[in-house]
Amino acid sequence: MGFVSITALGRPNGVLVRSSRRCWTRLVPGRRCARRRPTAALRVRLATAPASGSARAGTAKADSSSGDAPRITPRSQSYAQWYLDVIAAAQLADTSPVKGALVIRPTGWAIWERLRDELDRRIKATGAQNACFPLFIPQSFLSREAEHVDGFAKECALVTHHRLRAVTAADGKSRLEPDPDARLEEALVVRPTSETLIWHMFGRWIQSYRDLPLLVNQWGNAVRWELRTRPFLRTSEFYWQEGHTAHATREEAMDKAREMLEVYRGLLEQWLAIPVVAGFKTASERFAGAEETLTVEAMMQNGWALQCGTSHFLGQNFARAFNVYYQTEEAGTRELVWATSWGASTRLLGALIMVHSDDTGLVLPPRVAPTQVVLVPILPKEEAERQEVRAFCESLLGRLRGHGLRVEMDRRETLRPGAKFFDWERRGVPLRLEVGKRDVANKGVMCARRVDGQKMALPVDGLEARLEDMLEEVQEGMLERAQRFVQQHWHRVEQYAEMRERLRGRKAEEAEDGEVEGNMGGFFLAPWRDSVENEARIKEECKATIRCYPDGWQQEAGGKRCFYSGEMATHMALFARAY
Amino acid sequence: MGFVSITALGRPNGVLVRSSRRCWTRLVPGRRCARRRPTAALRVRLATAPASGSARAGTAKADSSSGDAPRITPRSQSYAQWYLDVIAAAQLADTSPVKGALVIRPTGWAIWERLRDELDRRIKATGAQNACFPLFIPQSFLSREAEHVDGFAKECALVTHHRLRAVTAADGKSRLEPDPDARLEEALVVRPTSETLIWHMFGRWIQSYRDLPLLVNQWGNAVRWELRTRPFLRTSEFYWQEGHTAHATREEAMDKAREMLEVYRGLLEQWLAIPVVAGFKTASERFAGAEETLTVEAMMQNGWALQCGTSHFLGQNFARAFNVYYQTEEAGTRELVWATSWGASTRLLGALIMVHSDDTGLVLPPRVAPTQVVLVPILPKEEAERQEVRAFCESLLGRLRGHGLRVEMDRRETLRPGAKFFDWERRGVPLRLEVGKRDVANKGVMCARRVDGQKMALPVDGLEARLEDMLEEVQEGMLERAQRFVQQHWHRVEQYAEMRERLRGRKAEEAEDGEVEGNMGGFFLAPWRDSVENEARIKEECKATIRCYPDGWQQEAGGKRCFYSGEMATHMALFARAY
Repeated sequence: MGFVSITALGRPNGVLVRSSRRCWTRLVPGRRCARRRPTAALRVRLATAPASGSARAGTAKADSSSGDAPRITPRSQSYAQWYLDVIAAAQLADTSPVKGALVIRPTGWAIWERLRDELDRRIKATGAQNACFPLFIPQSFLSREAEHVDGFAKECALVTHHRLRAVTAADGKSRLEPDPDARLEEALVVRPTSETLIWHMFGRWIQSYRDLPLLVNQWGNAVRWELRTRPFLRTSEFYWQEGHTAHATREEAMDKAREMLEVYRGLLEQWLAIPVVAGFKTASERFAGAEETLTVEAMMQNGWALQCGTSHFLGQNFARAFNVYYQTEEAGTRELVWATSWGASTRLLGALIMVHSDDTGLVLPPRVAPTQVVLVPILPKEEAERQEVRAFCESLLGRLRGHGLRVEMDRRETLRPGAKFFDWERRGVPLRLEVGKRDVANKGVMCARRVDGQKMALPVDGLEARLEDMLEEVQEGMLERAQRFVQQHWHRVEQYAEMRERLRGRKAEEAEDGEVEGNMGGFFLAPWRDSVENEARIKEECKATIRCYPDGWQQEAGGKRCFYSGEMATHMALFARAY
Repeated sequence: MGFVSITALGRPNGVLVRSSRRCWTRLVPGRRCARRRPTAALRVRLATAPASGSARAGTAKADSSSGDAPRITPRSQSYAQWYLDVIAAAQLADTSPVKGALVIRPTGWAIWERLRDELDRRIKATGAQNACFPLFIPQSFLSREAEHVDGFAKECALVTHHRLRAVTAADGKSRLEPDPDARLEEALVVRPTSETLIWHMFGRWIQSYRDLPLLVNQWGNAVRWELRTRPFLRTSEFYWQEGHTAHATREEAMDKAREMLEVYRGLLEQWLAIPVVAGFKTASERFAGAEETLTVEAMMQNGWALQCGTSHFLGQNFARAFNVYYQTEEAGTRELVWATSWGASTRLLGALIMVHSDDTGLVLPPRVAPTQVVLVPILPKEEAERQEVRAFCESLLGRLRGHGLRVEMDRRETLRPGAKFFDWERRGVPLRLEVGKRDVANKGVMCARRVDGQKMALPVDGLEARLEDMLEEVQEGMLERAQRFVQQHWHRVEQYAEMRERLRGRKAEEAEDGEVEGNMGGFFLAPWRDSVENEARIKEECKATIRCYPDGWQQEAGGKRCFYSGEMATHMALFARAY
């Protein structure tokens, strides 16, 4: 590259510039260039930086125009409030007049669309096809599968009437009420999940082995009546995909359940930069009606677990309940069909926020960021110069977009640059390009990375490729940082007392510098003898539950004793507090 | 091109081959090539062919393997039954156990996804952003806008309880019922449309002129309790987008309503190959709560109209009902906000079927076809030759897909070629490529066009470009044919008696050869004096309604007398029977 003159740039603290694909140079005024290779170094910084501090480095706070923007509570003070504040500040969602239901605002929905489109692509690549089934399910359907009804009948929205009528109330005012003449003979359940309805349809569509496997997926909304709601994590209405498959054999169905879990793991790690632990659920945490539930669990910054996707092996339970047999290849033989179902929801947006964001606001991994780069013109006072900066930026915008980068330009003229930086930092845009009149003269831009606040001057020449590399580097760095965090908060325990002690959580005065409020210490891996009763006792004693019997660890249980009962262990169990 | 030997191809009736971009040649065995330029000729044939006859030309019917496939009633016998049969035969949708709700099967949903993605792209290009609002609306919200409540309160699904409980019935059996202890204080309406909820939210988001315009779109489901349902056209649950915008001025809102109508027109004409008539609705056909409703109306093969998209200018009605004011640029002044809303739904799939399909089944315009080309290997008996044909097809498949064409290969080995042709014809795939061992030897394929049954030999060399051209030609030809149909069934009437007479519809014995059952003669344009009462009388007398006051014709009303009342005309009105 042609080096940029530091004095011309007028940045007293020096800037990092990239002099080749793998090499960065820190330019400090008055000093000769000291070469270094910061790709690895930056990675380390990303991987170890306490997520609270350094990201604050922006100019944002000092700017007065940001005075009326909602404040974000620091994580060290209240992690729960911080979560709500980040959602509000980034305008991801808003509360609604309907209890427990969320309004997902354009910024939030655009992230969901990116996630959804990528997951859809991955699901279709497994051979599944999308279809659409009714929102309402006759209430009698829910009782066809015995365990399923227990799991879902207790928390569902029921449609009982199909018309409103106007009546005059005691105060003389007219108001609306359900018309008693329009009562439905059988109440309809707003789908909490669609196994029952879909298996009713599968019964029509499956006759012979030639119709199998049948792989169907549906994108839509579902409703579960929740008492305690939390945006994205637990809402009465949520958006998701639910996949339903039918197979000729147990093995094929089990393989499919595994395959779909891997789809979720891939999406989480490669797109959301969230490492996960995969494994089987215990009986008490299984999906109602499943023989096995597979799960991917992620660790939030307070050490709690969040279930991010589940894949169920349903055995022949639903086929039996809905009488779905297939003709085998051997003439005259009929067999019950084997089933799986699997789903992931807008809950993933909650995971995204809780794993990566910081006290400044949202931090988005570049692959899911609807806007990867924001271009902020720093307009001089003189109109001719303003025009020059604007024209430079518009041309750059066109070039970068033409290259396939998702770039927005901040054209607001009433806002000061600092307020704009603050705004885009809260919204989590991975890279910010600042362009002032000096940058125009130097044919360069100043680039700031959201994830660590690092700034560096970049020449316009070859900028597309550099931004692409940087986005890739940020994406990788975020996954590595999250992986490091899991490693740091992953404990192997042989003594129940140790886990109980740690799970008390630290009070503010005990907490280490910058530690997240209420940190429960993370995940605990312990030898365990499978027991629903003991699991319930532990949940009561220290609120932790078994998130899963994690893959890759089960052979270690051999010969060990259960850390709770002292009996011979059957599994290695992963305990954590969970949302 | 290098000519293909007709005798080698062994097609006794000759085939059309393309010898250059604009030139086709009919090859007949034993005859020397007679050049012609069938691009225009083919267009004419497409534009005039009675949709029933020639498309049947395939080999399909003769094949015995198709014996158990559901039959399609001819349009001349029953247009309504034909419509249901096409949906079943192409596996677009299925009935569901929930009254009035449809299951949209993968084939149907894939078409909807293509339509949806393109409409979404066009909507985003207007500056609107997607968001997501709750499914449930408090019942009191519906009564906030006076006309709105009349329009929607009478046909909506009401959620009144949030839990089921098990009870023992008189016969000793256990069954579920809504738990009386879980009755909601205020019933929730499953959204028939979201104006009320969205304007409640707009009230939070809009403070000043800087927040305007606010352009929001939502994709989702909605429910209107319908007594008489018909797949895609009228179902209790349907899928759609509903756009909602807020503006500072009346003019800007009105312009937006117009702009969005043009979006629908563009999608219909350019993607669905459906010509439309655009115009304003009369008061009796307007959206409940709108000041003006703009509509695009399409003509079905039986001459009935189908409303395919509407865009409403809502004035300040919802802003007033939900108290949404904005601070103007001049300090201290507050003004009510102006509004539009606009929507298009899965009803478009109904239009697609009813405009283009024929007695053989579905006919898809190439742009919306999830599969544009199907590759059918004609496998010889000998295994070595089979392998050769398979390998040739697989390689061709890869090449065509690599070029961006949406191609599927029919790998079913138990089905005879004729049964496969029949199957793909019913599903409406625009082009079918047949590949037998002779084709492999000749490095060619036999290509059949779904829209007119025409077959032609094509060399593999340069096939991608030829298929692209052909798809484009089919797309254009379908639009032209549909336009011709509208012209043929568009009547200017000055006498009411003439319209009434024609609208009686023709009985089977009166109908012309191949005419669609129940054809009501189409659209009637007449001078008209705006009158809700006379409109209602005409509807009673001959079931026709005013579809719109069409754009581009209104100046003709000047000086004319209303064809019904004899008073001075105020408009030119377009009458038709309608779904």
